[in-house]
Amino acid sequence: MSGSPQAQMAVEYTLQELKKIADTAYLQPVMVPKWTRGNPEVAYFKNAQGNQIKVNVCALGGSVATPAAGIWAGVVEVSSLEELQALGKSKIQGKFVFYNRPMEPTKIQTFEAYGGCVDQRYSGAEAAAPYGAVGTIVRSMNLRMDDFPHTGAMSYGELPMEQYIPAAAISTNDADKLHNALQENSNLKFYLHQDCANHDEVQSYNVIGEIKGSEFPNEVIVVGGHLDSWDLGDGSHDDGAGVVQSMQVLETMKATNYIPKRTVRVVLFMNEENGLRGARAYAEAVGGTKEKHILALESDAGGFTPRGFGFDTTPLQMQQIQSWEGLFKPYLIHYFEMGGSGADVGPLKDTGAVLAGLRPDSQRYFDYHHASNDTFDAVNKRELELGAATMTSLVYLFDSYGLSKKLKK
Amino acid sequence: MSGSPQAQMAVEYTLQELKKIADTAYLQPVMVPKWTRGNPEVAYFKNAQGNQIKVNVCALGGSVATPAAGIWAGVVEVSSLEELQALGKSKIQGKFVFYNRPMEPTKIQTFEAYGGCVDQRYSGAEAAAPYGAVGTIVRSMNLRMDDFPHTGAMSYGELPMEQYIPAAAISTNDADKLHNALQENSNLKFYLHQDCANHDEVQSYNVIGEIKGSEFPNEVIVVGGHLDSWDLGDGSHDDGAGVVQSMQVLETMKATNYIPKRTVRVVLFMNEENGLRGARAYAEAVGGTKEKHILALESDAGGFTPRGFGFDTTPLQMQQIQSWEGLFKPYLIHYFEMGGSGADVGPLKDTGAVLAGLRPDSQRYFDYHHASNDTFDAVNKRELELGAATMTSLVYLFDSYGLSKKLKK
Repeated sequence: MSGSPQAQMAVEYTLQELKKIADTAYLQPVMVPKWTRGNPEVAYFKNAQGNQIKVNVCALGGSVATPAAGIWAGVVEVSSLEELQALGKSKIQGKFVFYNRPMEPTKIQTFEAYGGCVDQRYSGAEAAAPYGAVGTIVRSMNLRMDDFPHTGAMSYGELPMEQYIPAAAISTNDADKLHNALQENSNLKFYLHQDCANHDEVQSYNVIGEIKGSEFPNEVIVVGGHLDSWDLGDGSHDDGAGVVQSMQVLETMKATNYIPKRTVRVVLFMNEENGLRGARAYAEAVGGTKEKHILALESDAGGFTPRGFGFDTTPLQMQQIQSWEGLFKPYLIHYFEMGGSGADVGPLKDTGAVLAGLRPDSQRYFDYHHASNDTFDAVNKRELELGAATMTSLVYLFDSYGLSKKLKK
Repeated sequence: MSGSPQAQMAVEYTLQELKKIADTAYLQPVMVPKWTRGNPEVAYFKNAQGNQIKVNVCALGGSVATPAAGIWAGVVEVSSLEELQALGKSKIQGKFVFYNRPMEPTKIQTFEAYGGCVDQRYSGAEAAAPYGAVGTIVRSMNLRMDDFPHTGAMSYGELPMEQYIPAAAISTNDADKLHNALQENSNLKFYLHQDCANHDEVQSYNVIGEIKGSEFPNEVIVVGGHLDSWDLGDGSHDDGAGVVQSMQVLETMKATNYIPKRTVRVVLFMNEENGLRGARAYAEAVGGTKEKHILALESDAGGFTPRGFGFDTTPLQMQQIQSWEGLFKPYLIHYFEMGGSGADVGPLKDTGAVLAGLRPDSQRYFDYHHASNDTFDAVNKRELELGAATMTSLVYLFDSYGLSKKLKK
C-alpha cells in the first residue's frame, strides 16, 4: 500500500529493473496518504436461532477504527444511498447501514457493473453518518459468490472528523447470509471490530524509465501501471500485471534492438488506489516541460487475455487509430472503442495526448479485485505476455506514425 | 473414460437431468472401446552426474503396457516424425524415441498450435516401432511450463500387434529436463513402467433430450458436447463444460417459456476422445429419418469466456450468419469465422446442416487439457454461463429464421 515499507521496496526494485532496460531511470517524488489495517477485523451476527454467525470482513481503505471493544448494533439494509433519505434518522440512528446492492451480472463489461455499485463502498459512510449510523457494511464488489471480502477506497467527503464512522466490506456469501438472517429477524445485532488508522502523509515516488526518441525526442509516449496495491493480496492483477507489462514494452524494444523515433517512457505510478497522487504529480511536472505527449497508455484492468483498447481522444484522431484495427484482428485484440482509458493517465488529458487503456477480458477480474486472492498464482503467464505484446504493438504504431498530421496543432 | 463405470454414471445422471427439461429424453446405444490405465506410471532417468531424476509421466490412451519389470533403455530425441527416417534403424533400435517439438507459442489460436504437434502423440509409436524403438515418450501438449503430464489418444495404425510399443507423455518441465540431460550425456538411460491395457468393447450410449418444434418438427437443431473424458482429471473443461452448456440451452428455453418452432435436440456424445463412436452412431441414425438437420453446434473447447463461433458451411449460408454478427458484438462474442466446427458434429456434414463450434478464449485451454488439473475448480461459473448464453443465442436465431430460404434445397 501507498506509504508502506512494501511500497518502498517496490519503488527500489522497479527502479533497478528499469535501469537495466531504459536509457535513464529515475524517481519522481510524491507525498502519499498512509493508512494501515492493523489487526485482522472481526465481525459476526446473531441469527434468529440465536447462533453466532462469523462473517468474512475487512475494513475499507481510509476508514477509521471501531472503539476498542467493537460495535454491537442493529442493522438496516438498503440497496442504494438514495434509500437512506426515505428511511430517515429514526430508522437509521444507532445502527449499521448495510449496503447490499450487488454488481449487475448482465453487464458484459464487468467494469460497468462495478461502476454501478461502487458508490456504496466509496460514499456509503459519508451518506449514512449524518443519519446517525454507527458504521457501514458493504457487500463486496464481486460478481462471484464466495467468502472473500474485498476492500477498496472510501471517503468521508466533507464530513467533520467527529462524524467519521467505521466502514467495512463483507463477502458476497456473507452478504446473502446477513440479508437472509434479516428477513427472519430484522432486529438482529451485528458486531464489528477493526483497528485501522490513518497516519501522516509519507514521502514516496513514481518510478520512471525511458528510451529517448531518435528523431522526435520531445514527443513522448507514456506507458504505465500503478505500483501501489491493496494489502489483502499481493496486488498481482491490480496492478502488478500493468507494471510488468509496461516494463515489458521497453524490454521488448531493447531485446529487438528497436530504437524508437519518439521517447517511450514507462511511468509506474504511486498511489492510484487511494489518492491518485502519483498521476497528478506526473501530469503537473509535464506542464513545465517542452514535451508533447502523444499517447498515454495504461494497463490497470488485470493480466487477462487482451481484447484491445479503450480510447479517450477526439473522433478525428480515433479515425487514425481505427485504421490500424485490421493489424490487430488476426490476434483477436481488435476491440478498439472510444470511452475510457485509465485513472492514472486521466490527468494527462490536457496535454492533447491520446489516452488509452488496455482492455483485457474482464469476466474474472472482480473475482480477485482488492481481495486476498489477488496473488501471483492467479495470473496466467501467457495471458500476461499477450497483454504486454498488445501494448507494445500500439506503442510501436504511435512511435512510427505519431499523431495524425492533419490533426496536429 | 469410455467404457468405464464412471462413464455409465454420467449417462444415467445426464439422462435424468434431461428428463427434467426436455419433452423426451432417451439413450442411443453405441459400442465403445475400453482402455484402462492401471497402476500409476513410473519414469525416471539417470543424468550425467549419476542422479536419478523422477519424471512426471502418464500412458497415452490406447497404449500397451511395458513388461512387468518396465523398460530401461537409451533415448533418442527428435522434433518430428520425419526425423526418424534420417536417423534410421541403427540410431533408434533398442531405444525410446523422445518427441520433443513444443507447441508453437506464437499461434494466437492455441488449437492451431495443438494441431501442429499432436501427430507426435497420436502417431509417434506407429512411426517409431518399425525402426525398432522400444517405446515413445512425448512432450505434453501444453504451452505452459509445469509438472502435469497430458494424456490423449494414440494409435498404432496398421501395425501388427507384435510391433506395438508403449507410449507415454511427460510434463513440459520434465521434457526440458530430459532434453538438457541428453545434451550432457546422449547415452543416458530412461526407465518407464506402465500397466495400461486395452479390453473388449463395451456397450455405452449417447444421451439425447429434445424439445419438439411447434411449426417445423422435422427441422432439427443439434447442440452438444461429449460425455466421456480422459481419466487423469475429471474432464471439467473437456468436456463437462460443453455438456452442461448444451443442457443449459434447453433449460434456458424451458425457464423462459420459449417454445421453439424447430426441434432443438441436445446430444451428449459418447467416446469423442478415443473413437468418435457416439458421433458416428448419431450421424448414421439420422440417415434413416425424414429429419432435416439445419444446425449442429458443438461446445468442446473449454468453459472459458466465449468469443464467438467457428463455422463449417457454404459461403452463401455464411452470409446469413454474418448478418447476425451485429447482434453479438455488444457482448464481445462476434468472432464469426469459417473454418472448423467440432469433432462430434463433423459426421453430420452430409446432412447439409450448418456445422458450428463455440469458440471460447483458448489461451488457458491447454494448461488443463487431458491433465489431472482439468477439474471443477478450474472452471469459472460466469465464463461457463456466458458460453451457454452465447450458444442459446445462436440456436434461437436458427430456430427463428431457419436456413436462408434461397439456399434451401
